[in-house]
Amino acid sequence: MKHFLSMAAIALLAINANGQQALWGGSDIISPEINPDKSVTFRLFAPDAKNVKVEGDFQGGEMNQKEGLWEYTTPAPLAPELYSYSFVVDGLRINDPSNVYQLRDIATISNIFIVNGDNADNYRVQDVPHGTVSKVWYPSAMNPADDSTSPYMRRATVYTPAGYGESDLRYPVLYLLHGMGGDENAWSELGRATQILDNLIAQGKAKPMIVVMPNGNADLQAAPGESALGLVKPTTNLPRTMEGSFETYFPELVSFIDKNYRTLSDKKHRAIAGLSMGGFHSMQISKEYPDMFDFVGLFSAAVEPRGDRNVAVYQDIDKKLKTQFSKKPALYWIAIGEKDFLFDENKAYRAKLDAAKYPYIYVESTGGHEWRNWRNYLTQFLPLLF
Amino acid sequence: MKHFLSMAAIALLAINANGQQALWGGSDIISPEINPDKSVTFRLFAPDAKNVKVEGDFQGGEMNQKEGLWEYTTPAPLAPELYSYSFVVDGLRINDPSNVYQLRDIATISNIFIVNGDNADNYRVQDVPHGTVSKVWYPSAMNPADDSTSPYMRRATVYTPAGYGESDLRYPVLYLLHGMGGDENAWSELGRATQILDNLIAQGKAKPMIVVMPNGNADLQAAPGESALGLVKPTTNLPRTMEGSFETYFPELVSFIDKNYRTLSDKKHRAIAGLSMGGFHSMQISKEYPDMFDFVGLFSAAVEPRGDRNVAVYQDIDKKLKTQFSKKPALYWIAIGEKDFLFDENKAYRAKLDAAKYPYIYVESTGGHEWRNWRNYLTQFLPLLF
Repeated sequence: MKHFLSMAAIALLAINANGQQALWGGSDIISPEINPDKSVTFRLFAPDAKNVKVEGDFQGGEMNQKEGLWEYTTPAPLAPELYSYSFVVDGLRINDPSNVYQLRDIATISNIFIVNGDNADNYRVQDVPHGTVSKVWYPSAMNPADDSTSPYMRRATVYTPAGYGESDLRYPVLYLLHGMGGDENAWSELGRATQILDNLIAQGKAKPMIVVMPNGNADLQAAPGESALGLVKPTTNLPRTMEGSFETYFPELVSFIDKNYRTLSDKKHRAIAGLSMGGFHSMQISKEYPDMFDFVGLFSAAVEPRGDRNVAVYQDIDKKLKTQFSKKPALYWIAIGEKDFLFDENKAYRAKLDAAKYPYIYVESTGGHEWRNWRNYLTQFLPLLF
Repeated sequence: MKHFLSMAAIALLAINANGQQALWGGSDIISPEINPDKSVTFRLFAPDAKNVKVEGDFQGGEMNQKEGLWEYTTPAPLAPELYSYSFVVDGLRINDPSNVYQLRDIATISNIFIVNGDNADNYRVQDVPHGTVSKVWYPSAMNPADDSTSPYMRRATVYTPAGYGESDLRYPVLYLLHGMGGDENAWSELGRATQILDNLIAQGKAKPMIVVMPNGNADLQAAPGESALGLVKPTTNLPRTMEGSFETYFPELVSFIDKNYRTLSDKKHRAIAGLSMGGFHSMQISKEYPDMFDFVGLFSAAVEPRGDRNVAVYQDIDKKLKTQFSKKPALYWIAIGEKDFLFDENKAYRAKLDAAKYPYIYVESTGGHEWRNWRNYLTQFLPLLF
């Protein structure tokens, strides 16, 4: 079974280029190819296919075939951005076998590519000093979903900035929260947070900081495949996501980080932000612990509790907001896209803040509830911190 | 374009199960499904396909179709193991859209699943204390491939055992090296090294240790997509892999690790092992620096230099081996599969060691040059260390 020979074996065999092509599934094919004019060409070798399309968050279309090689070039240059796409071959959605760069969004995997320039340059790995990205486990007093008797540990992604290892400096901390169905990998992978941080810090646009990206699903210890649940199918059907547990237990994570990293552990040097459900969590946590965070970012945030409001963290919200704003947070930042399905909910929330004369910064973008916006919001938000 | 709506948006919209199925590409399909008797069933919804096969490192075959849903069940139970597979749909190799678990081996992505039991239980995430896995950058004096004037940094994966953060203990260090075309992600992902370490340490079968998995390609700073080269196609066509640079500059990595981690920084507490090209590197480095490593593991190792032998590290190999063995390494461990294309080369090397009466342990397994063996060798090797 040629396909499952080890690639290391193949390399050592020093076979010729034609042999490689056969073994690697037509590996001489370049797809996608970003052309000098920033149009993009996609290719797929599928001699038996009848119809092949490119679908993505750009103008895709039908591919044309010649000797089994299907090809499609976007009709116009693409603006700088990180794009996602798939092929549809005779009705079946597949990933591009010539492109190993993929991102998982809950249960769906799509291919990605980056058209360079403008803000998209912040999503690329550049030749700048790089921070360290760690997958860490911290102890939690939250009850696990199962009856495990082991200490209940939860997984988080932690970014420490370049130079952290070579100094005794203390750093401010941003807690950065994912949306429903997401996990502790979402911001560093789908959100390109690692690259955005490396680049903005190198440009002097953001202060060196520690960024903590926990798992916001109370019933999950870790991302799919990273816990003892095994290689289960990812789902958004998680009972304990917006029912108060994550918000209530949040201080245990802050304590762990302050204990295990060289943090500046006061309100002035702590920020919290999140997208969608993570924006909801950021809103709830920051008002619940009004002395903990001086910087708050709500990216396409849900605002209203969805399920049982009868838990302590969702009680007396107006009163808690009053306390929070009486303590004058350094930044309360709200961003949403004009087509976001949470637009009206955000509008109502802003009206409430306005009525109470609570100061905040509001950014309205094009687009909807999508990673393209959240990467962009993070890039705008980071320079405002600390 | 439904597919590219954010999944978080979809979740918050609280659509019904049928809507989810449509949006998530038939997400109610479970594939693969490991049956109670440990046979495995694969499923693919592809109503327009004419022929669909399962191909993997087990007995695959033709799938049967009913109302557009193709299905195949292995004729016999599968032995406990981590398996890889793809579908072939009308001649086109694709990944299973119902299985988000995939591994990249150089330029090829395959789906994976685990049949539990025996040694495969060590490849699973279990409910045990977990180590921290970090992606770190260390400075290198190796010349970069390009003319960059920035400090040349190289990326490595570092595992620190559970408890590292909560104590002041110092730990022994294993340097674990990948094969040709691999990178600093290979052992932790394809090799399941993180899970194997967590499990063997929890069982008391391996000592808590730090494990350092660097990138062994002198011309690459990092894995594909993780350097300023961008989202380029992975290749084994790397000019500086077995030409002495990596071996020559290896002490800079050891210095970095000893400086930045709480290591036991003497020979007695250092091991080096690798697969294929990484076995070659381990052999060369351990004999080049005979006071550095007390434990050496050659997994399906290349032994003979492939290209220009006219570099210092490949000179006087017999003399250097004599020095190395005169210092009595605690363990020199060689493992290879009976079908490995490097079997004869290893046989010749063992004959040389035998002739000189240099002691080593030899493990011969079934199979060839494949990750299945390397995961197994790691599981056998770790309990022998420190």
